[in-house]
Amino acid sequence: MSACEFESLEKSLESHLPEPELTEVKRILFGKETKKLDLPPCAVEAASERDFELKGYRFEATQEQLRPARKIRVGLIQHHVVLPTDAPVIDQINGMHNRIGEMVEVAAMCGVNIVCFQETWTMPFAFCTREKEPWTEFAESAEEGNTTRFCQELAKKYNMVVVSPILEREELHNTLWNTAVVISNSGNVLGKSRKNHIPRIGDFNESTYYMEGDTGHTVFQTQFGKIAVNICYGRHHPLNWFMYSMNGAEIIFNPSATVGALSEPMWPIEARNAAIANHCFTCAINRVGTENFKNEFTSGDGKKAHHDFGHFYGSSYVAAPDGSRTPGLSRTRDGLLVVEMDLNLNRQLSDKWSFKMTGRYAEYAEELTKAVRHDFKPNIVKE
Amino acid sequence: MSACEFESLEKSLESHLPEPELTEVKRILFGKETKKLDLPPCAVEAASERDFELKGYRFEATQEQLRPARKIRVGLIQHHVVLPTDAPVIDQINGMHNRIGEMVEVAAMCGVNIVCFQETWTMPFAFCTREKEPWTEFAESAEEGNTTRFCQELAKKYNMVVVSPILEREELHNTLWNTAVVISNSGNVLGKSRKNHIPRIGDFNESTYYMEGDTGHTVFQTQFGKIAVNICYGRHHPLNWFMYSMNGAEIIFNPSATVGALSEPMWPIEARNAAIANHCFTCAINRVGTENFKNEFTSGDGKKAHHDFGHFYGSSYVAAPDGSRTPGLSRTRDGLLVVEMDLNLNRQLSDKWSFKMTGRYAEYAEELTKAVRHDFKPNIVKE
Repeated sequence: MSACEFESLEKSLESHLPEPELTEVKRILFGKETKKLDLPPCAVEAASERDFELKGYRFEATQEQLRPARKIRVGLIQHHVVLPTDAPVIDQINGMHNRIGEMVEVAAMCGVNIVCFQETWTMPFAFCTREKEPWTEFAESAEEGNTTRFCQELAKKYNMVVVSPILEREELHNTLWNTAVVISNSGNVLGKSRKNHIPRIGDFNESTYYMEGDTGHTVFQTQFGKIAVNICYGRHHPLNWFMYSMNGAEIIFNPSATVGALSEPMWPIEARNAAIANHCFTCAINRVGTENFKNEFTSGDGKKAHHDFGHFYGSSYVAAPDGSRTPGLSRTRDGLLVVEMDLNLNRQLSDKWSFKMTGRYAEYAEELTKAVRHDFKPNIVKE
Repeated sequence: MSACEFESLEKSLESHLPEPELTEVKRILFGKETKKLDLPPCAVEAASERDFELKGYRFEATQEQLRPARKIRVGLIQHHVVLPTDAPVIDQINGMHNRIGEMVEVAAMCGVNIVCFQETWTMPFAFCTREKEPWTEFAESAEEGNTTRFCQELAKKYNMVVVSPILEREELHNTLWNTAVVISNSGNVLGKSRKNHIPRIGDFNESTYYMEGDTGHTVFQTQFGKIAVNICYGRHHPLNWFMYSMNGAEIIFNPSATVGALSEPMWPIEARNAAIANHCFTCAINRVGTENFKNEFTSGDGKKAHHDFGHFYGSSYVAAPDGSRTPGLSRTRDGLLVVEMDLNLNRQLSDKWSFKMTGRYAEYAEELTKAVRHDFKPNIVKE
């Protein structure tokens, strides 16, 4: 399937639309133009040798009188699984570590301060199978697992904050969680953020494996800014983004795994809406490729049993609080998106649009408290 | 300015992109294809004679076993002001009544059941001037004003629900409000919905004229479905859409007045995100054209005093709960968008995606109640 997949919306528009229409179309679709970032030739060369796409953009802010600019760089990484899904578990994990290692090295060349990987990045997205074995073997301790140790080494080596979304096993209770581990650029585990909303749709049988997260809306204060992690299906829930923002998040990462037939037209909408509504940056990351599983499974849609989940369409992007966004990475290739942002833009947009002040949140708190009661009487007027 | 305005995104894509790329681009941008609706030739001819764009589309749903289809048609109307803004107030209002009258007649030919006009449709969007006179003279009683009476006649004549957003004067207290009057197809005033969120941005000096609405999140049960009205700037507030949905809204109208330089890249995002997140239909309506005012005014942006607000870019559209949307009306012309929708689609999408069940609203009610306190302690983890 991958071979004939459409590569990217942006490429198609740029190939066919003449000026000045292209400029108007891009303005309406993507907002104020996001300028390209000059990346070092060694990084460009390494990305090419290692066969992944490398793109860089920057969002600027107005220079203020009292605050210096707060320019930082984030890196978003999307990738295929490296080995067949029936290879030994340890080989699959090691293969992913190697791949991420060589991509993060390029991120370091590009001056990335905070890197985020895709959802459950060490494994195939095998929850479609509803098989517990061998997939639960991919689960690791958030604090002491091999993958966390691997990321701690990367963080120290490159002075980089690492957001590492994994399948977590809490060993004390033998519970599984879908969790992002946040590792400081010092190499210390700063904490973890568990997936708040768990899908029950299509092949996303994750509710068979783990429950709704219990870490609330934690924000991590790093040296490079306050960050939060809204994992995958949480992007469909505006309240989830909102509550991270209410806790002070300046950048909200959305590591995901989602397929074209289900969600693709929603992908450019949701993270971007969240950036606008919450005056913050959002970073949407999706895996790429089609993953094949040895045993066939059905999808609850009346169709024949089959061996894959469909095509994960990549298209990772960053959205800014001013309604603009970067182009997406490819729908088909591994990629690293490097984005420089001046975090002062958040407060500038908040001062401009004032959604936090005009939001009437105290009234919503009261209304919502009433609305969640089983005996809630909705406000419906009839003739 | 209007003369050189770009006409529409959709037209540009269709003119230049070859197949099969056009199909892929449209799928990613707009979701599942929205089929064209056959409109009666008399309507097409009347629209052409009366010089406005007429477009029709339909959203389908799966035929269920136990529920019959619930197909209804909504009409969205966008238009210029008819007379110069310094014409006598009564002439301006009458001119608008005439224009809307001839457009609604075409909506009736197209079988529209519920029609919605643009924000404060009887007047220029004069709040940029910060002058009270003569603009406050456009304000009318929601229950007994001439415009409401005019709409009641339309409603009875065409058996059509009319959503009429006006500048309201509550005569008892001499207070002004930005209000949508909802008139049943029987001709009775069903109620009113006041604008919940008032902007303080750019030339949107509405907070000089009226306060935040006090009608909460009322939903109107009409013969054709449960509807709500989220006026203009409320579309930037996800909680506003959400609370209308929590009260049972199946269609949420968003009558607006907004200009290109400020909001255009956000326009295709916000109402569409709301349709997805809330499993309902949303209808975004924006006025068209550039309105000139006799007295110059400044815009708080360091630029010279000037006489217009900028170009209102039209582009009215309907978004469906499955992530798809209609193309937009023109950026430059008056228009009527007729959309047939099977309201069964809402529940079908809710059963598929289950956001209301996976939303954890009780926990958000608690978190939000804490977060709105002045002494709220955000959940921030530091090293």
